[in-house]
Amino acid sequence: MKSKIITVGDEILMGHIVNSNSAYISDKLYSVGLPVEQIVTVGDNEEAILTELRNSFGIYNVIILTGGLGPTHDDITKSVLVKFFDDELKFDEKVYENIISLFKIRGISMPETNKEQAMVPKNSKVIWNKNGTAPGIWMEKDDKILIALPGVPLEMKPMLDESVIPSLREKFSESETQVQKNKIILTTGISETSLFELLGNIKDITGDDCKIAFLPSFPGVKIRIDASDVNEILVNEKISEVEKKIRAKAEDFIYGVNDDKLEKIVGDLLVEKKLTLSVAESCSGGLFASLITDVPGSSKYFLGGVCSYSNESKIKLLKVKKKTIEKYGAVSKETALEMAVGVRNLFKSNVGMSVTGIAGPEGGTENKPVGLVWIGCSFENKTFTAKHLFGDNRLRTKLRSVMMALSLLRKELM
Amino acid sequence: MKSKIITVGDEILMGHIVNSNSAYISDKLYSVGLPVEQIVTVGDNEEAILTELRNSFGIYNVIILTGGLGPTHDDITKSVLVKFFDDELKFDEKVYENIISLFKIRGISMPETNKEQAMVPKNSKVIWNKNGTAPGIWMEKDDKILIALPGVPLEMKPMLDESVIPSLREKFSESETQVQKNKIILTTGISETSLFELLGNIKDITGDDCKIAFLPSFPGVKIRIDASDVNEILVNEKISEVEKKIRAKAEDFIYGVNDDKLEKIVGDLLVEKKLTLSVAESCSGGLFASLITDVPGSSKYFLGGVCSYSNESKIKLLKVKKKTIEKYGAVSKETALEMAVGVRNLFKSNVGMSVTGIAGPEGGTENKPVGLVWIGCSFENKTFTAKHLFGDNRLRTKLRSVMMALSLLRKELM
Repeated sequence: MKSKIITVGDEILMGHIVNSNSAYISDKLYSVGLPVEQIVTVGDNEEAILTELRNSFGIYNVIILTGGLGPTHDDITKSVLVKFFDDELKFDEKVYENIISLFKIRGISMPETNKEQAMVPKNSKVIWNKNGTAPGIWMEKDDKILIALPGVPLEMKPMLDESVIPSLREKFSESETQVQKNKIILTTGISETSLFELLGNIKDITGDDCKIAFLPSFPGVKIRIDASDVNEILVNEKISEVEKKIRAKAEDFIYGVNDDKLEKIVGDLLVEKKLTLSVAESCSGGLFASLITDVPGSSKYFLGGVCSYSNESKIKLLKVKKKTIEKYGAVSKETALEMAVGVRNLFKSNVGMSVTGIAGPEGGTENKPVGLVWIGCSFENKTFTAKHLFGDNRLRTKLRSVMMALSLLRKELM
Repeated sequence: MKSKIITVGDEILMGHIVNSNSAYISDKLYSVGLPVEQIVTVGDNEEAILTELRNSFGIYNVIILTGGLGPTHDDITKSVLVKFFDDELKFDEKVYENIISLFKIRGISMPETNKEQAMVPKNSKVIWNKNGTAPGIWMEKDDKILIALPGVPLEMKPMLDESVIPSLREKFSESETQVQKNKIILTTGISETSLFELLGNIKDITGDDCKIAFLPSFPGVKIRIDASDVNEILVNEKISEVEKKIRAKAEDFIYGVNDDKLEKIVGDLLVEKKLTLSVAESCSGGLFASLITDVPGSSKYFLGGVCSYSNESKIKLLKVKKKTIEKYGAVSKETALEMAVGVRNLFKSNVGMSVTGIAGPEGGTENKPVGLVWIGCSFENKTFTAKHLFGDNRLRTKLRSVMMALSLLRKELM
């Protein structure tokens, strides 16, 4: 059982957009026992798409093709499909009604061009698209399946989740002989190599049945455990056995598993301990508050933040002493501390955190280079600060300083 | 002249990471006349990589392969390369010194495992990696080139920009016969189909020599113009001719070109008009400030922001009247207005903007559904508000509300 993804679009080959659809689709196919063996991107070009279909149809149980289903002249997927399957297009009344109703909801009249989108291959099953005008197409031949979906993620994802994946699960549920699963262990504060050495002999950890892989990432290295067996219970046992051995050696560096987000983990800790948080930001420029508020329900513990981009606002809003800034500078241990205390007082929160630094590209000096960041924290009757050097990339420094602040806060709350 | 990208990594096939490297590489290869015709992702599997190399080496002028150069057991790219090129690995003293010095800078001792990274194929040229321990590999055969680079973006990108692309430009500068270029026109506030119809007959716009494509995106549809000719001057002329015809019909919806960012365009307008800005955020939770401060030099016009996640902070910091919130609610035209005026007064900025809404997933009512957002602006002696419905995805609503606020501010400043 295996699958393949074909992504169609000149804009991907030219580097104008990142192919994020493939990651989403891969993850879902893996979960129904159809691991992706290959992802190929080709242009909006009939011959290139046909060649790819000819080379791969029949080899994979399922091929998912995305892109090229739009209403304009550069969308050619449907015409390629009818050529490949020796089929023809027919007008589908129901699809047409769906398109009309979508325009009605938006309160705009339907451009004539969209009518063409109601044409679908005769021997296909239509996959409904409730978020856009391009229907998905499901075609089969000799028990092999080809599914064409729109390239717009907001349309593709619900179609995949609500129609394609349930249908595939049903279709292949009986033929499954092996269950494949994986689990990601998230670490921070240790390099890939040091982690590798800390774990020692990999075979002692995995045995003969499992695999582990190291994925350098941010805010730290991920360890992926892979296992397969005849049923889910046995797979889970194998994975938890490996996880236990990893934790025995590297527990100090592990902050979560799978899709866990540091901001969510910190949020859960705040809820658990019934604490509230406020943040004062200089170089992170609002990103700290933004990451925290990405978490649904964060209003329970996050009272708010001040982005004090000017010295005046640090003094006026956060009550940082003017002479502190004059003597030590806006990027200093002392200012970071007063910002943390100040924002905590301002919002009357249990915890106050601050980030001040030089995001660059300008503003660095020999003593205070671009990338220098001070993080401050005021909690209960104590305060602490941390100094970091995050390098010369502005956006990276913003992100790193926020992730580091979250990481410090997590440790403090534990 | 054409190129191909091979990405190696189980983590991509399993959907754990998005393949953002390929977009970056594609863009750079296009710029030196080596457009990418195919992008393929395969797993950390010797046979899969070898098959891909056998099927494509010789067909493309350049193949760039990323991933699998790390120090751990699952990194197999170098061993595959020596197999494919019938070569062998040798210890490279200079690469070893580079690895040692990298650890020295970080102030940590080198794990023994990293020594293996100094092994490179005998018949290769090393590409220096100043940000990591994995050297890049350049190999040639019959005038076709294969380049292996690490998969970590922070290492790969500088290696590509500083070594690979300049070398490729030099190598292929004489053999180039056609110059290919493209330009992206950025629009907002119009659907793909409506834009398509507004432009009318595509051939009238492009002539026989150019191509245009519509790319649905956010905050709006992008139009890509493609042209090629024997030299750059002629290509530029062709593109600007097409751009002129597009602008004649759709100027109202165009806010920029190519990599222009709305936050940068707004920043430039503020600088040009010598105005300062502050923002008050509720549902966007800091993202507005964060996007503005992504722009280098934004401290010239951005004074700061308040993320007032609680009603108390709206009242205390932004001086929103308690009875306004009681009567109209925190998500209302009236509160949005008072927040904009309040933050402008607080920071003494020329412009004050506000965003308040229901990001969800909870907190919606029949009258005020999840996704409802009010945007407010206070500028000179006037104020205005705008109401939008952005749907039920929390992160999308955050982003859409900020982009809409920027879009409104841009129009106001013009």
